[in-house]
Amino acid sequence: MRGPAPLDKLARCLARLPGVGRRSAERMALALVRDPKSRVEELMQALDETQKSVCLCSRCGGVTAKDEDPCKLCTSPTRDDSVLCVVEEPADIMAIEQSGSFQGRYHALMGRLSPVKGAGPDELRIQALGDRLDGEAIQEIILAVGTDMEGDATANYLSDILKPRGLRVTRLATGMPSGSGIAYSDSTTLTRALQGRWSTD
Amino acid sequence: MRGPAPLDKLARCLARLPGVGRRSAERMALALVRDPKSRVEELMQALDETQKSVCLCSRCGGVTAKDEDPCKLCTSPTRDDSVLCVVEEPADIMAIEQSGSFQGRYHALMGRLSPVKGAGPDELRIQALGDRLDGEAIQEIILAVGTDMEGDATANYLSDILKPRGLRVTRLATGMPSGSGIAYSDSTTLTRALQGRWSTD
Repeated sequence: MRGPAPLDKLARCLARLPGVGRRSAERMALALVRDPKSRVEELMQALDETQKSVCLCSRCGGVTAKDEDPCKLCTSPTRDDSVLCVVEEPADIMAIEQSGSFQGRYHALMGRLSPVKGAGPDELRIQALGDRLDGEAIQEIILAVGTDMEGDATANYLSDILKPRGLRVTRLATGMPSGSGIAYSDSTTLTRALQGRWSTD
Repeated sequence: MRGPAPLDKLARCLARLPGVGRRSAERMALALVRDPKSRVEELMQALDETQKSVCLCSRCGGVTAKDEDPCKLCTSPTRDDSVLCVVEEPADIMAIEQSGSFQGRYHALMGRLSPVKGAGPDELRIQALGDRLDGEAIQEIILAVGTDMEGDATANYLSDILKPRGLRVTRLATGMPSGSGIAYSDSTTLTRALQGRWSTD
């Protein structure tokens, strides 16, 4: 874009957000110029409030209110202390919570191993994970990481350092996503779904 | 999402931006929590500056600085007053300017006709277009609107009310986009490209 300088700067700031390319950022910036003043102010207010009152939980790495750290998921007395679900990002915790299918504790790594992008074990919250294993009564670790190459690398690395501790280490099932058709699935997904097929008896 | 309230509010604000769905808005909001404080502040500053100093040109509807209205494109003495390029959005003006292939004046309609979405002629800057035709020495109108159904409807409507004024009314050529392959083009594009084929002699 080559609009007025503040607009170009706004587009550059927006382009840093995940999944936002240069073109989309420009479109968003222009929409904000066209938006009524009240809407832009609401966005600024939301940014301000979020920055002032939201942070990452010092224990699990998930999102929490600044006056509630450790977060509710870490301190709730009704959750299962023996199972720890290791995820890549805070957003993953929210997705699993929305499914309502897990009642244990969480640990976000804040990334994944990626030799290509230069993200090694030291960039991740692996030391913090070790400290938790020393201090908490964890028996099973669920490696709920991505099922792509970097996710696999992360899971393999963690599995290697966790198993000697005598923990049960598991990964999420891989297979057909719910509501999907065979023809729309990629070969790797189909291969894994076939390998993991189950008997209907 | 069901995170802390300010985060949910931030995601809702972001989801109003064009091309941003609920999921992407949540991802962006979470990224902003993880971002260093300085980056969030830079974004807020850019929003503030944009709101304070950028507006839409009262003549053409394009983006301009608040202390430069009418905009440079409207006031430049070197541009051709006889050709007016009518576009849907301010962003379209920037795209055409970037191509460097047009030297006339612009007029943004701020939308397009869409019976489905209830956008009729009164929502668009058509009255303002009429006023400009009365006051300026315009001889040709280029209808640089989209080539989909709503763009066609907008162009046809404008063409019908502009032609009786004795103006030359043109539309952009339709055909294969530059750098594209036949196999990747949809049928309508190929049909139009065949209809508009030219002799290489």
